[in-house]
Amino acid sequence: MVGYAFMGRVHSQAWRSVGAFFDLPVAPVMAVLSGRSEDRTAAAAAQLGWAAVENDWKELIKRDDVDIVDVCTPGDSHAEIAIAALEAGKHVLCEKPLANTVAEAEAMAAAAERAAERGVRSMVAFNYRRVPAVALARRFVAEGRLGEIRHVRAQYLQDWIVDPEFPLVWRLQRDKAGSGALGDIGSHIVDTAQFVTGQKLTGVSALTATFIGERPLAEESAGLAAGAGEAGDTGTVTVDDAAVFIGRLSGGGLASFEATRFATGRKNAMRIEVNGSLGSLSFDFEAMNELWFHDHTLPAEEAGFRRIYVTESGHPYAGAWWPPGHGLGYEHTFSHEVKDFLEAIGNGTDPEPSFADGLRVQQVLSAVEQSAANESRWTPVPQ
Amino acid sequence: MVGYAFMGRVHSQAWRSVGAFFDLPVAPVMAVLSGRSEDRTAAAAAQLGWAAVENDWKELIKRDDVDIVDVCTPGDSHAEIAIAALEAGKHVLCEKPLANTVAEAEAMAAAAERAAERGVRSMVAFNYRRVPAVALARRFVAEGRLGEIRHVRAQYLQDWIVDPEFPLVWRLQRDKAGSGALGDIGSHIVDTAQFVTGQKLTGVSALTATFIGERPLAEESAGLAAGAGEAGDTGTVTVDDAAVFIGRLSGGGLASFEATRFATGRKNAMRIEVNGSLGSLSFDFEAMNELWFHDHTLPAEEAGFRRIYVTESGHPYAGAWWPPGHGLGYEHTFSHEVKDFLEAIGNGTDPEPSFADGLRVQQVLSAVEQSAANESRWTPVPQ
Amino acid sequence: MVGYAFMGRVHSQAWRSVGAFFDLPVAPVMAVLSGRSEDRTAAAAAQLGWAAVENDWKELIKRDDVDIVDVCTPGDSHAEIAIAALEAGKHVLCEKPLANTVAEAEAMAAAAERAAERGVRSMVAFNYRRVPAVALARRFVAEGRLGEIRHVRAQYLQDWIVDPEFPLVWRLQRDKAGSGALGDIGSHIVDTAQFVTGQKLTGVSALTATFIGERPLAEESAGLAAGAGEAGDTGTVTVDDAAVFIGRLSGGGLASFEATRFATGRKNAMRIEVNGSLGSLSFDFEAMNELWFHDHTLPAEEAGFRRIYVTESGHPYAGAWWPPGHGLGYEHTFSHEVKDFLEAIGNGTDPEPSFADGLRVQQVLSAVEQSAANESRWTPVPQ
Amino acid sequence: MVGYAFMGRVHSQAWRSVGAFFDLPVAPVMAVLSGRSEDRTAAAAAQLGWAAVENDWKELIKRDDVDIVDVCTPGDSHAEIAIAALEAGKHVLCEKPLANTVAEAEAMAAAAERAAERGVRSMVAFNYRRVPAVALARRFVAEGRLGEIRHVRAQYLQDWIVDPEFPLVWRLQRDKAGSGALGDIGSHIVDTAQFVTGQKLTGVSALTATFIGERPLAEESAGLAAGAGEAGDTGTVTVDDAAVFIGRLSGGGLASFEATRFATGRKNAMRIEVNGSLGSLSFDFEAMNELWFHDHTLPAEEAGFRRIYVTESGHPYAGAWWPPGHGLGYEHTFSHEVKDFLEAIGNGTDPEPSFADGLRVQQVLSAVEQSAANESRWTPVPQ
Repeated sequence: MVGYAFMGRVHSQAWRSVGAFFDLPVAPVMAVLSGRSEDRTAAAAAQLGWAAVENDWKELIKRDDVDIVDVCTPGDSHAEIAIAALEAGKHVLCEKPLANTVAEAEAMAAAAERAAERGVRSMVAFNYRRVPAVALARRFVAEGRLGEIRHVRAQYLQDWIVDPEFPLVWRLQRDKAGSGALGDIGSHIVDTAQFVTGQKLTGVSALTATFIGERPLAEESAGLAAGAGEAGDTGTVTVDDAAVFIGRLSGGGLASFEATRFATGRKNAMRIEVNGSLGSLSFDFEAMNELWFHDHTLPAEEAGFRRIYVTESGHPYAGAWWPPGHGLGYEHTFSHEVKDFLEAIGNGTDPEPSFADGLRVQQVLSAVEQSAANESRWTPVPQ
Repeated sequence: MVGYAFMGRVHSQAWRSVGAFFDLPVAPVMAVLSGRSEDRTAAAAAQLGWAAVENDWKELIKRDDVDIVDVCTPGDSHAEIAIAALEAGKHVLCEKPLANTVAEAEAMAAAAERAAERGVRSMVAFNYRRVPAVALARRFVAEGRLGEIRHVRAQYLQDWIVDPEFPLVWRLQRDKAGSGALGDIGSHIVDTAQFVTGQKLTGVSALTATFIGERPLAEESAGLAAGAGEAGDTGTVTVDDAAVFIGRLSGGGLASFEATRFATGRKNAMRIEVNGSLGSLSFDFEAMNELWFHDHTLPAEEAGFRRIYVTESGHPYAGAWWPPGHGLGYEHTFSHEVKDFLEAIGNGTDPEPSFADGLRVQQVLSAVEQSAANESRWTPVPQ
Repeated sequence: MVGYAFMGRVHSQAWRSVGAFFDLPVAPVMAVLSGRSEDRTAAAAAQLGWAAVENDWKELIKRDDVDIVDVCTPGDSHAEIAIAALEAGKHVLCEKPLANTVAEAEAMAAAAERAAERGVRSMVAFNYRRVPAVALARRFVAEGRLGEIRHVRAQYLQDWIVDPEFPLVWRLQRDKAGSGALGDIGSHIVDTAQFVTGQKLTGVSALTATFIGERPLAEESAGLAAGAGEAGDTGTVTVDDAAVFIGRLSGGGLASFEATRFATGRKNAMRIEVNGSLGSLSFDFEAMNELWFHDHTLPAEEAGFRRIYVTESGHPYAGAWWPPGHGLGYEHTFSHEVKDFLEAIGNGTDPEPSFADGLRVQQVLSAVEQSAANESRWTPVPQ
Repeated sequence: MVGYAFMGRVHSQAWRSVGAFFDLPVAPVMAVLSGRSEDRTAAAAAQLGWAAVENDWKELIKRDDVDIVDVCTPGDSHAEIAIAALEAGKHVLCEKPLANTVAEAEAMAAAAERAAERGVRSMVAFNYRRVPAVALARRFVAEGRLGEIRHVRAQYLQDWIVDPEFPLVWRLQRDKAGSGALGDIGSHIVDTAQFVTGQKLTGVSALTATFIGERPLAEESAGLAAGAGEAGDTGTVTVDDAAVFIGRLSGGGLASFEATRFATGRKNAMRIEVNGSLGSLSFDFEAMNELWFHDHTLPAEEAGFRRIYVTESGHPYAGAWWPPGHGLGYEHTFSHEVKDFLEAIGNGTDPEPSFADGLRVQQVLSAVEQSAANESRWTPVPQ
């Protein structure tokens, strides 16, 4: 694994736990953790349970005892690490968004395709696909329970930078993060919308905003945490604070998206509602064990959104854990991700979402930025 | 009153009830009902409690025993009736949207301005402003409880025409209704967003869709109800089934709107959420007695969206009815509207929302249609 | 109508409105209002729309222009007024609880039975039976959708006397009110539980509490409102502040009840959940347009409590009002009550809940008080 | 650890994970797993990550490499194992309910007291105390935010044995489980009620029911899972299916409890609401990351139950995991339990809930059974 901040911690918990709950074709061993800071990487490895440490990821991908590389760094290094790892014959799990630019994503998708021919697997870590409720939503749509899809409305609402004194962490810097709310959380709802509906966005029209243009410098900036710069020093926020966009689905439906870090009181509200001719689905990650389903084929007198508590043995992933009613948390989405990845490796299949899927999300994000820069004009997404 | 369909029925209930709950400066008398069909108008008058009947609204506005004209007809006749009534010196309450076109709305607003100089009052019936929870939301924003407004997301979701066999009622015909979901329900969320925030939309980018282009003819079409045409006859739907649009508020915030009649399972979900730097508000008409308020100035450990059950004596309108906890329904928004209108007449003030406010909504709707017809391009709203 | 406080106001609104929405076999005329205070009764009649006034209810029941007597007084006068009215051949609608004692209720039920033989109708005003969602719940149980009933848990939670300075209104005095939370709101959940399940309580075990024993005197005490006594004067609360009790249903299920005026934050939370072998139902009056239904016969993967928004044309009562999605309020339960009462009168049938039903509730309340006074011992309810 | 069924699996995950998220004074090593079946215990140890196996728990407590014994067996063996382990100088974490009888619980509490004098620690595993929202509720009450406690209503609703064909697993047999819903889940709500309020139940009045008296035999019965006996063989259910009881708190409030396995649609609804003179709290484990708080000291116009999403860094336990908004699941309550236990061992303090706390719960359960067997008569709980 490369990186040990927020994503590194939760991926570690997934690698540590997955074998106790799923019958896997290959058993993961937490071999090597890579990070630039010698002291911190060693401390993280000790705490998170990694057996060895490398301070240069290039050494890590050379090692014979490494079969899988899990890329948990900021987006600006994804392409370099992932491509090198694939070329070295390592299976690669890469955090999202796949890259900071379409060009990088294209290179990664090409590398993944080449690697796949040699049996080397790759997957982009859109973990929300592995929320049992989201996977169940996909199942319902695939089974035709919703009929023709007319509407998707998806939001990813957070509020962690509402305070103007919150410092200029790496996620607020374009060179490191690529974009702001758009790439960080907007990418999730774009992927989820395309995953659940089984359709692509054909184009978008968009607006973005940066509400607070200057912020105190952070001494360092890892993940969501950040220290303080020298008193009084500020820097410029170079990414969006929020993005709203509308689009069309390949099946003709309308879609509406909003990604923001300024929705006070919403902490991690990754929401999606899908309305079809035969039914509707609604999900909010802040109640992640629930999927709301409206079956429009029932008599009107007894129809209504029902709260499916997605903890039954027949639900995706859920049966592996506890008896019905004993809900899962955020981390379990990563355990499921790792489980699917290991199964694909063991079974010799290509896991999803692929790097090509990650590229498609990147193309949507790029179209959003283009539209926002061009009078919100309709901007097609390459298909 | 002119018209006795859905709106006529609920306005009648408001006129009938208001005096028993509010101390009014003028007491309403339900004098004359106007409708084209002699039989039906007489039957409606008997059922709804109107003392007399006119089959030509021009006769109605001539009568000396009529001081107020309540216009409850489809939008294509609003301008003619309302302007004539104002010129005849009658106070006018006009259903929304104010008109089917900006030109008509401009003429109406001009007529209203002239009438106001003579002490003749006019109001457009955006009844959702009079939901106690919505009025409370406005109060919170006006008091500064939300700080700077960063986001508005508003939706008006219905599902009554999902069935392709639902007939071609007047609301689906451009010549009568002006537009579809956009004008009928989109107008409400535009007005509510501007009312609650106290800001204007400066421009929009939009998409619209008509999912079902042909429908069975309706023999007649009054309100939401409709009979059947001859077997097999169909006609073309000439309005939008759904509209999604994004925009900017005059204060710099981002806004997102969606109006649709194809959201299966959502019956009358008029929703608005507002996020500000100090707090947030959330409302859904399907739970109309509740306003959700997040006070971001509280310590994070005890903050969260709270459900204010808007039935306290200190809440707008609510105190006039029952003790706390005994909620109101849809019709009461009209009782409150009529109460405010009568108070303005009695007190010699101009009620809100004015025809000018109605015009401003119409300008937004027009900008939405222009943008949708022009590659979703950013379309400013005249200020 | 006798009485014009809280109940009188809402009954008046029902009599005033019902004819505009329901086709009735007899048309109500709001003839005479009776109240002891000359001035106040006259003012109330003017505001509420009653044509005439009597200051002695005995005069009211002598009048030829009175066919129906609606008893909206405190419980201590129900028996005398209702029995006299029935004997005078007037149909009687009597507020709940039917009486303050079982003896009074027995006399009233006997009078009602005698009157029925002469075609004179009587009904006790358990208005919550006429919430569309509650009526729908009854329909589901009657249709067998829940299977065998295993559990009822019902609560009626209010908080209006939490403040120790709230005065000693009549509802806190045993001689006027009979009991406290138990009779006032506990009676509703007992009736609702028996109505929805179609079963009787066979016995109970109970605890009651009076949390605040002394309160300031109220100068006068009508309904929930109250003025202040002389500074410093207090009086003793002679009723329960809260009652909790458990019991068995005639079908073998367990039932749990709680009635309190000390549940801070709960304003009018009249709640009932019923669990059966095939499904469950849940209702809370604070969201009165919703019935939650779990269909246990569905596959576990797609089952869950669904929110039926009880505003469809096929739902009890709801179709008479507005299109789907436009909810009703507290007052409409009384319009429905009056509608059913008038239909029974017009059709020559005996309406429900009968005075005998009211007696049965009174017997449960009496058993609760006996059990609470007798070490919570199991106390059978006469069947 | 002794036992590897449901509880053993979740305890293992806690032992495995806790060190990666909390700074602990002692680092746990998963040394030995004990179970009677040689094959199954070995397989479980391999899957769950235990280094060694013993097939007799008496051998396990003799081992020098064992410092802590975690008792995850059915209740009938708790006393023997826990007392022996304590006497052997091992710290003991024991699953709930502490024992199957008061006598056993008394012996265990006495053994724990003796052991504590020698620095040997013991704790009973009422894991719901370690739900962050429940711990926060306790904090609010302890800080006086609720004022005087007037009401507790607690329910633990499940539905896993509604089907009459569900087999006679050990949890339905009195000799193994002690009691049914009462001991298994009723014990949790009794402990939680006493923990959150900081008060004791002084007495109870109770009803119990066994709805399905005969069930198919289970070939084996471990945890909630069960195989089938020979076709047609049935056995008698010797425990309660449901228990309802009411009681008084030591501070004078009223309490109401319900534990059932027959609430169709409720999967693991461990709920508690507390109403005090200054505020109220409400919790439902099916939405375990939420605590609802009503602050009655706010102006009535802005008060209401607020949803505190208990994922902030300042919330109990939550800060150790992920950024705000990324919720936890069922298993984390055990990680928190183990963390507190290890801290107490490392710091030389006695952890809570103690065996004495477990005894107090057992005394309540016993009083419930006595009352239910004795006409629901009020039955004091020894203090």
